[in-house]
Amino acid sequence: MGSRIGVGLLGLGTVGGGVASILLSPDERHPLVADLDLVRVAVRDLDRPRPVDLSADQLTKDPEAVVNDPSVDVVVEVIGGIEPARSLILKAISNGKSVVTANKAVIARHGREIADAAAAAGVYVLIEAAVGGGIPIIEPLKQSLGGNRINRVSGIINGTTNYILTRMATEGVAYDDVIAEAQRLGYAEADPAADVDGLDAADKIAILAALAFGGAIDRSGVPTEGISSLQGRDVEYASQLGYGVKLLAVAERMTDQGATDVLPLSLRVQPTLVPTDHPLAGVNGVNNAILVEGDPIGRVMFYGPGAGAGPTASAVVADILNIAGVRHASEAAGRLDPLLAADSWRQCKLVDPGDVRQKHYVRFHTSDTPGVIGRIGSCFGDRDVSIQSIVQFRANEAGAEIVVITHDVTQKQMDDALKEIQSMPEISGMAAHLGCL
Amino acid sequence: MGSRIGVGLLGLGTVGGGVASILLSPDERHPLVADLDLVRVAVRDLDRPRPVDLSADQLTKDPEAVVNDPSVDVVVEVIGGIEPARSLILKAISNGKSVVTANKAVIARHGREIADAAAAAGVYVLIEAAVGGGIPIIEPLKQSLGGNRINRVSGIINGTTNYILTRMATEGVAYDDVIAEAQRLGYAEADPAADVDGLDAADKIAILAALAFGGAIDRSGVPTEGISSLQGRDVEYASQLGYGVKLLAVAERMTDQGATDVLPLSLRVQPTLVPTDHPLAGVNGVNNAILVEGDPIGRVMFYGPGAGAGPTASAVVADILNIAGVRHASEAAGRLDPLLAADSWRQCKLVDPGDVRQKHYVRFHTSDTPGVIGRIGSCFGDRDVSIQSIVQFRANEAGAEIVVITHDVTQKQMDDALKEIQSMPEISGMAAHLGCL
Repeated sequence: MGSRIGVGLLGLGTVGGGVASILLSPDERHPLVADLDLVRVAVRDLDRPRPVDLSADQLTKDPEAVVNDPSVDVVVEVIGGIEPARSLILKAISNGKSVVTANKAVIARHGREIADAAAAAGVYVLIEAAVGGGIPIIEPLKQSLGGNRINRVSGIINGTTNYILTRMATEGVAYDDVIAEAQRLGYAEADPAADVDGLDAADKIAILAALAFGGAIDRSGVPTEGISSLQGRDVEYASQLGYGVKLLAVAERMTDQGATDVLPLSLRVQPTLVPTDHPLAGVNGVNNAILVEGDPIGRVMFYGPGAGAGPTASAVVADILNIAGVRHASEAAGRLDPLLAADSWRQCKLVDPGDVRQKHYVRFHTSDTPGVIGRIGSCFGDRDVSIQSIVQFRANEAGAEIVVITHDVTQKQMDDALKEIQSMPEISGMAAHLGCL
Repeated sequence: MGSRIGVGLLGLGTVGGGVASILLSPDERHPLVADLDLVRVAVRDLDRPRPVDLSADQLTKDPEAVVNDPSVDVVVEVIGGIEPARSLILKAISNGKSVVTANKAVIARHGREIADAAAAAGVYVLIEAAVGGGIPIIEPLKQSLGGNRINRVSGIINGTTNYILTRMATEGVAYDDVIAEAQRLGYAEADPAADVDGLDAADKIAILAALAFGGAIDRSGVPTEGISSLQGRDVEYASQLGYGVKLLAVAERMTDQGATDVLPLSLRVQPTLVPTDHPLAGVNGVNNAILVEGDPIGRVMFYGPGAGAGPTASAVVADILNIAGVRHASEAAGRLDPLLAADSWRQCKLVDPGDVRQKHYVRFHTSDTPGVIGRIGSCFGDRDVSIQSIVQFRANEAGAEIVVITHDVTQKQMDDALKEIQSMPEISGMAAHLGCL
């Protein structure tokens, strides 16, 4: 179909093995797959048994041998982590090779540096596999939504936590029990912190926001809250009130002021109540879904398997094919397709989280004094915090639990009111504080 | 950002107006939008008031003036219908212009002719807006799933019928009442046949199948059943059995025999029971969703507004941007990106619908004779039709209704059994026959 493309692979773990397996069995896939030659693969251990049949001269223990190999046109980085991944990517770029990576950590932190290097070298760095596993979301954001003014990108972009939350909701299992089983099943790492603390989701929403809004994002400024302190009780109360609880990552435009030098954005990751009739509410198990809202498109959602060897390999191969396709069109022209290259075109800044308006869910322990609901309501009202519902659960001699769902208010208003309420003698504590859609 | 691209517009109705409005307000959209010049627009009536501000020399009543204008690089066809749309598209192509069209009818019937002409002329014909309104589905199929062996594409791809079915399900309204209101609200045409008879969905599934499976589809061979004879009673019974009823369009690979000269496919459009926990079951109102199943990706879904000026215009502009982007990379190279051009790479044939296996839902009127369920069950069993459930509804002195849901069986087996059952004296008729997932 086109000219042949040499592919070099850094890493032959789960995803790398999946990629190799697609490249070595092109039948029934797009015919362009047959033009891809897997020429060189860097592995940690030459003697380990492998799922794919590779010759001794294809394998090397030296990743530099891959990024320096003149017959390699596209380097696929699937070793993960910051270093040596970052250096190898930059080396491949400086050698004039395009790069495909599934590495959200390195892109979220060093995406600007890598993009600048790629633009200078006239090569592509494609990252479809870094967010949402197999779901096409990066390329649609770049290539299918450019006519829109994007207002909001939100979604469930961590499969491990969504699996845990789904189990908690459907079976009433406690967080600690689910995490143990998720580890046994391989859905959660031995050290699950990156997932359950929301760090992985924060990496991914930073990447999505940079593409959707066209400017680099300061990853370190993303307020991030995980699910490790989430209690089964709140999942249960949310359900009674018509909501599911999801770990939601959100990136939204903060003003309506049209074109501006620096675009103010709010990014955040937090456990959030999602109304049961919302498209994201039905996304269960290890599935992911990303909702993009823009003008004039309205709301589109991309749904599918958020992780796993096969889906992630599908995304990696899609990126290689895109490079092969556009190279075929532009060979010798020496110019990049700006949509595929996805250069940033403006500056973005993260706003003060205290200024961000959203709905809140809070749960208080109270001594069940008559009138406490009224006093909580007045306290919120005094600070212009408008309330959607106050419901009392489990009143008994030990006290009661009061759940409040507000309308949209700023974090600052909310913090002021909560401070005041927690100082009331009849309030023994705030047991939970979540976001709400 | 790049060089300027001249856009010519055929038609300034709802979608055309939406496209013009995006092109004339590039702020806050992808910067490449600012490189698009709306140079010429063909309209039916020069004096009609318009939603966008166009100068007299931009407007013409002669569509030929647009496709022959040397300053037009990309022709956008949004007049719809077969002719003169087909001739104008071919004329634009022969003039060396790329084409963007939202016209599913012309692409489903003349796609092969148009693609051949485009390949010969070295131009692109992009059709994102032809299926699923604003939902990115055409480009992801072409550019993001090429590493997969696609097994099945199915979906809800007609917004009018989905609106009607949603109203019937949620409010128990009868078909005739909903269609009248849908017409009042502008969700259904004065002559709704193309929608309610499934013809529009058949056009679209033929287009999706051609891209997913890589070969032209004989549109006239797609078995198509609409919703105009669907009864509210079946929507109600389906709901009691844990299903929603959707007008589903399906394209699936029929064998597992690997690479073959001619790929056997089944395409069909029919009202289908969808289990309530299936991702397509929650797609309501005028929304569309397309589910793509492949190996190794598993299952991904694309969801969003299936129609409307804004979403459809978003898809049209995405196509123009893709042409602008790849042209920027390949200017003077004179070659096409094979992914974007999406040439077909094999032959497909539609199999005999009688050989297609699926689950069925049937409803019989019976005189409530003891034992009739047993006799129906035996009759299916004798023909190897395995049954998932038989349920009796509304038994009274006038008789009863028996609903049967089968496991996967071929249409031929089913037809044989149904013929036999309808000849039983205690069966007064078959009142409904739908598909089932």
